[in-house]
Amino acid sequence: MDFYQSNVRFSTIPIKFLVLPLLLLLSSCSDTEKDSNITMSQAFSPVDLVEPLLGTADSRWFYFSSASRPFGMVNLSPDTQKEGTWRSGYRYHKNTIHFFSHIHAWQLSGIPVLPTTGEFKGHLGSDQYGSRFSHDNEMVRPGFHQVYLDDYEINAELTSTTRVGFHRYTFPESEVSHILFDFSTILGPSGSERGYVKMVSDSELEGYVIMEGTLRRPKPVKVFFIAQFDKPFETFAGWQDGKLVEVSDVMEGAAIGAYVSFPTSANEERLMKVAISYVSTDQARLNQQTELAHWNFDQVIVESHNDWNRWLGRIEVEGGTEVEQRRFYTDLWKALQGRRIVNDVNGKYLDMTGDERRTGQIPLDGHGRPLFNHHSSDSFWGAQWSLNTLWHLVYPEVTEDFVNSMLMMYDDGGLIPRGPSGGNYTYVMTGASTTPFIVSAWMKGIRGFDVEKAYEGLRKNHFPGGLMSKAGYEHDTFKGGGIEYYMERGYIPHPLSDTRYGFHQDGPGQTLEYSYQDWALAQMAKSLGKQEDYEMFSDRSQNYRNIWYEEEGWMWVRDHDGQWREPFDVLEYGNGWIEGNAAHYTWWVPHDVPSLADLMGGEQAFNEKLNQSFEYGREHDFVTQRTEDNELRDIRRRNYINYGNQPCMQMAFLFNYSGAPWLTQYWTRQVINTEYAGISPDDGYGGDEDQGLMGALAVLMKIGLFSTNGGSAIEPLYEVASPIFDRITIHLNPGYYPGETFVIETTGNSPESYYIQSAELNGRPLDSPFISHDHVVNGSVLKLVMDSTPNKSWGLSPSP
Amino acid sequence: MDFYQSNVRFSTIPIKFLVLPLLLLLSSCSDTEKDSNITMSQAFSPVDLVEPLLGTADSRWFYFSSASRPFGMVNLSPDTQKEGTWRSGYRYHKNTIHFFSHIHAWQLSGIPVLPTTGEFKGHLGSDQYGSRFSHDNEMVRPGFHQVYLDDYEINAELTSTTRVGFHRYTFPESEVSHILFDFSTILGPSGSERGYVKMVSDSELEGYVIMEGTLRRPKPVKVFFIAQFDKPFETFAGWQDGKLVEVSDVMEGAAIGAYVSFPTSANEERLMKVAISYVSTDQARLNQQTELAHWNFDQVIVESHNDWNRWLGRIEVEGGTEVEQRRFYTDLWKALQGRRIVNDVNGKYLDMTGDERRTGQIPLDGHGRPLFNHHSSDSFWGAQWSLNTLWHLVYPEVTEDFVNSMLMMYDDGGLIPRGPSGGNYTYVMTGASTTPFIVSAWMKGIRGFDVEKAYEGLRKNHFPGGLMSKAGYEHDTFKGGGIEYYMERGYIPHPLSDTRYGFHQDGPGQTLEYSYQDWALAQMAKSLGKQEDYEMFSDRSQNYRNIWYEEEGWMWVRDHDGQWREPFDVLEYGNGWIEGNAAHYTWWVPHDVPSLADLMGGEQAFNEKLNQSFEYGREHDFVTQRTEDNELRDIRRRNYINYGNQPCMQMAFLFNYSGAPWLTQYWTRQVINTEYAGISPDDGYGGDEDQGLMGALAVLMKIGLFSTNGGSAIEPLYEVASPIFDRITIHLNPGYYPGETFVIETTGNSPESYYIQSAELNGRPLDSPFISHDHVVNGSVLKLVMDSTPNKSWGLSPSP
Repeated sequence: MDFYQSNVRFSTIPIKFLVLPLLLLLSSCSDTEKDSNITMSQAFSPVDLVEPLLGTADSRWFYFSSASRPFGMVNLSPDTQKEGTWRSGYRYHKNTIHFFSHIHAWQLSGIPVLPTTGEFKGHLGSDQYGSRFSHDNEMVRPGFHQVYLDDYEINAELTSTTRVGFHRYTFPESEVSHILFDFSTILGPSGSERGYVKMVSDSELEGYVIMEGTLRRPKPVKVFFIAQFDKPFETFAGWQDGKLVEVSDVMEGAAIGAYVSFPTSANEERLMKVAISYVSTDQARLNQQTELAHWNFDQVIVESHNDWNRWLGRIEVEGGTEVEQRRFYTDLWKALQGRRIVNDVNGKYLDMTGDERRTGQIPLDGHGRPLFNHHSSDSFWGAQWSLNTLWHLVYPEVTEDFVNSMLMMYDDGGLIPRGPSGGNYTYVMTGASTTPFIVSAWMKGIRGFDVEKAYEGLRKNHFPGGLMSKAGYEHDTFKGGGIEYYMERGYIPHPLSDTRYGFHQDGPGQTLEYSYQDWALAQMAKSLGKQEDYEMFSDRSQNYRNIWYEEEGWMWVRDHDGQWREPFDVLEYGNGWIEGNAAHYTWWVPHDVPSLADLMGGEQAFNEKLNQSFEYGREHDFVTQRTEDNELRDIRRRNYINYGNQPCMQMAFLFNYSGAPWLTQYWTRQVINTEYAGISPDDGYGGDEDQGLMGALAVLMKIGLFSTNGGSAIEPLYEVASPIFDRITIHLNPGYYPGETFVIETTGNSPESYYIQSAELNGRPLDSPFISHDHVVNGSVLKLVMDSTPNKSWGLSPSP
Repeated sequence: MDFYQSNVRFSTIPIKFLVLPLLLLLSSCSDTEKDSNITMSQAFSPVDLVEPLLGTADSRWFYFSSASRPFGMVNLSPDTQKEGTWRSGYRYHKNTIHFFSHIHAWQLSGIPVLPTTGEFKGHLGSDQYGSRFSHDNEMVRPGFHQVYLDDYEINAELTSTTRVGFHRYTFPESEVSHILFDFSTILGPSGSERGYVKMVSDSELEGYVIMEGTLRRPKPVKVFFIAQFDKPFETFAGWQDGKLVEVSDVMEGAAIGAYVSFPTSANEERLMKVAISYVSTDQARLNQQTELAHWNFDQVIVESHNDWNRWLGRIEVEGGTEVEQRRFYTDLWKALQGRRIVNDVNGKYLDMTGDERRTGQIPLDGHGRPLFNHHSSDSFWGAQWSLNTLWHLVYPEVTEDFVNSMLMMYDDGGLIPRGPSGGNYTYVMTGASTTPFIVSAWMKGIRGFDVEKAYEGLRKNHFPGGLMSKAGYEHDTFKGGGIEYYMERGYIPHPLSDTRYGFHQDGPGQTLEYSYQDWALAQMAKSLGKQEDYEMFSDRSQNYRNIWYEEEGWMWVRDHDGQWREPFDVLEYGNGWIEGNAAHYTWWVPHDVPSLADLMGGEQAFNEKLNQSFEYGREHDFVTQRTEDNELRDIRRRNYINYGNQPCMQMAFLFNYSGAPWLTQYWTRQVINTEYAGISPDDGYGGDEDQGLMGALAVLMKIGLFSTNGGSAIEPLYEVASPIFDRITIHLNPGYYPGETFVIETTGNSPESYYIQSAELNGRPLDSPFISHDHVVNGSVLKLVMDSTPNKSWGLSPSP
């Protein structure tokens, strides 16, 4: 738990690098953009609390970031495990840096580079040319990564703008040193199919690499780059198929790499800028010229630091322990990346939705800047319980970017996407998970998009031919979603067919998702005056009832004949349930919790069943932990709770709906303390952080705000739980919301004292765990009095 | 495929190491033991064809061996992945050697050491102190491993006797060099609980380490060692909890390590012997004194080489390609290890079956040598289709060792074991898999054991309170085996109970296993004149019929009420089927294939279904490939065939029983070419080699001999398939069998010409694919004429 207490690890950094934290402390917040009117405390520097190494013992490709801006296109960082969709990228307990690569995104990777000295080994592959390193000689901050490469005695520093990686290498004296570009390696989810590198001058290279298609993103993706050096190199050469080759100025083909060489004197610094584009080398060059025309490395570190501070500072917390604060800002930092920008500075972007790759153009503002950004993103599966609430409230401009770019993709390819990757559809996970995300944005007053187009696109997804026709990664057919069955008979049978279309073809799980998503779309229909649609989707939203297995008291699996699957096994994983079991999914009725309680026999029965699930879950740390051991995995998945993945993130909040808010307060604290505590590489998110979803959930639990129905109601509500801090200030974006801040104050709060005794909203007593979105964004103050014994009579008034 | 053609890789070894292959070539076969009367061709050196690196891209802890004798207690080799039940040990594509450790066995590991130079880093953990290496500076042979440690400029060579690891390190000039012993690291399946090291003199250490209990072997295991050095060291020191500590002569506790230090001159050689015992340090010292009293390192390499040649030379093959020969001897080599010796030279062994650890004594012969060896071994689950045939025929003395040591464990702990590990029961996998192994030995005339005791112990396992009462890894209860249900109603319901006892509690799969094992025991009962038992077990052996789902034409899952599980899904993995699906298990009636064909509607229907399974399987390489990707794994497991694991190893041979021997010839060749071909680190066994099981299967397929019922019939038969070589000579052990050799000769054999046209046994026409065990061991010659078109009328005569 105290792996990284305070600033201990700074003490081991060589003296010369200590200048950087000082630089950062001295830097001001003067460099502002869109959010220039948001007022924050001046001395407050949350970025210094972030622990980028959290959970890196078990990184996924896109999990770790160092030299990257919020949602940055470039995510420049060392890779210590180069292959794998899972467990790759920067993994803490590996001892070799293979290379520094520039893209760690959903199904995207590219442009690995490494400085070396002495005899060239690049053609032997990174198992040979990679360098040993020690965490003792490493410093990792948001926006900055410094590491000493033991094998080459090179100190490497990395920072970035949004689209340009910036490298500063301090070389030893060496007759010959090199910087290599490897286009023959596997890189996270993809292999390198072929590459092209051209020497533009003795201080510039340009080229591209084609990253292979994957199971999840079948079409190859071309990644363009330019690399500029602050001093000329002496030679340009390359390799192919593991053999060194001489080249004049172009190196091209499969299994190639290229490198530049030069002599270095002792402690000689060399700088390199690598800019990226998915469109062309010219666009990469434009990105570099626009974002990083100078060579002042320290300035970029400071700007990146300030950038992160502006973003993270939207939520200010006071109280709690230092470790809790560090972990909190790390959670928040996680929610602001993973889903990476893919368009260029001038709004050009890659459209891969058709048969041919195409360059698209995002509309521009009066200064020629794109009105919104396009992203590579995992799906919004589970976002109703995480990003919907965090982003929409605290970063509404991000929400608007995502909504607009998804509508642009609808124009391009005919579908509002699930998990767009580099302009491709990936169809990650199931259902129309984008619906509640967009509906909730609309309901909360985020309206800078074409709502009629949005409704049309969302509606399409809820019918045959839309996303509800597709299972996970079902790229070529529209069969696995089962929407026809859902419409005709009110549930999706499992198994659906002898043929498997894609993955996660799990009828009952899909039935629950669709029901909720239908409810969300019904609200939008109502809001837009489409009464007929409202009624139709409202009817469909009751379909969850058709898989309620009264006899057992849980949701269950039905076949084509309507028969319940025998034997009933509430803990059986998969086989009808998407990454979960019936115990997880039974609670998946976020839009109609009171009716679910009725099905279970009333609030008391509901509370007993839910509480027993938590009691059981506690014995297993509330997660179905990931493991490489087949036998252990099967056992661990037999849990009633899983706070390591999306399917039941809302469970602890349901007691607010069933007359027992104190149990929401109790269980959210238990989950926080068990799963979302600690700041070491071996702590983490108990499973799969998934591009900000679990980070955002952790943030919400810790500030004690949530929304079970994803905020998609006509009048969105927030549910109050048990904030762990004494004071929480959310700085609202004045471009969207009238209030300056929303403040939560607690008194008597402590690790043992987490039950709400009484509450006040803007000085008036509050006896309900629900607050309206309007109250929040108009700038309210919520005061909570906490104690160590529950006040079981608090919070029982109906929602406003 | 041609990754390791010929001797290419020898060319990159530094000149000084080339002397070793020469040494080996010059060595004679004069050093003989038990098998002294077996005659082999003198010039034939199969050990030189073995490729130890095969499949090491995905090693399991006990998969790889270099410095190890056949079934050796010591398996000294570098570990490049130190943690994990799976994917650990020596993995080819890792670039760091953490240490050389001495034990790579079923649930056992221990005594990691590493030589280093310069500043000591042992206390920082092997991520820091481990050394980079290159396969270019490495030589790996059975019995020998040489590798250059880049970080320390040390050339390390390893060899061994059965119980002693022998190290030769060539150091650079260094003011201070070290050899460290790490008792704080995780090591494959286990962590290190605590250690003890004592400086006995300035050239000897002794001590032990307690390796933690595991899921599969719950009790900790104490591993004793002594280490002797050929030259004195200058200092002895250690570390604890990551900090260096000074010691006088004893270092003890949790999270400790120890090291010796000394100056070295350029190219200074230092030797070290590390002997192991599970009983005591005195026993470790006795093992060393008995097996390795001298310091002649080269002599041990030569002896190990000769030892392997004697073992591997039992089967001589001619013809085929060089790669096929190399792969064949690698397969055979795999079948002669993994299941490691655990007793000391004087027959003392660790008995962990009771509440207290106890030292046992194996009976001795007139020279004070143990009459048999005790082993640490994965279960015999699947051995009826692999080791039963290979060992019993070619290495009957190994069979007898295993039978006797299992009976000794029956004396110790009351059960003939499943997967004994260091004197512990581990209960790996399901059923009484030892029964067919022992019955088959008895039927084949391997009778140097107490057969009445064997029968009593096996019989116990077939009733409540025996192994048929235990699921996998069910350590403390006798509930998960379901034998009561099997006896009462003729099948084991699934799910058995709401409680899970252990793992692999898969009723229908267990029902099939038990039926076959009952049949095997019935044969033994008959052979011993126990008519009543014969009839009872024969009746029980028909229980497979009770899960035959006539409506679907496959075996299927029944619940407590006798209902078939809905929906029927023949490809659903697990959930009733142990590491397989109904498509794999339907064929699991090895003792009654003709009746299975009748159930399916006759031979033609049987052949069609089986052939379609293979046609489908071919599109998926005949395996359900292992992958770390959850979604891919689920898809890949939906295969009708899996030649990467045990549950359906017999499928390709079943056509011999159904009037289509040509399809056995065809499909065995396809499987060989797809799954058991190639010799590179990335080739392998398509899943889990499992301590010789898949290696033995590959050997059997390639020599074209098999036994579907495991050879447990009163008169065991061998089934003939399609040998890939021109001539195969099995040198029979004269202590067991009257014939000198069994020879298979083919004419017209080629990659395209693999169908048997006609056959002769000892000069007389053979029109059946079955040969009796008596014929084989009396010294027969089988001649096969091969062609590229099938002779569909050959082999249709009934079995003799």
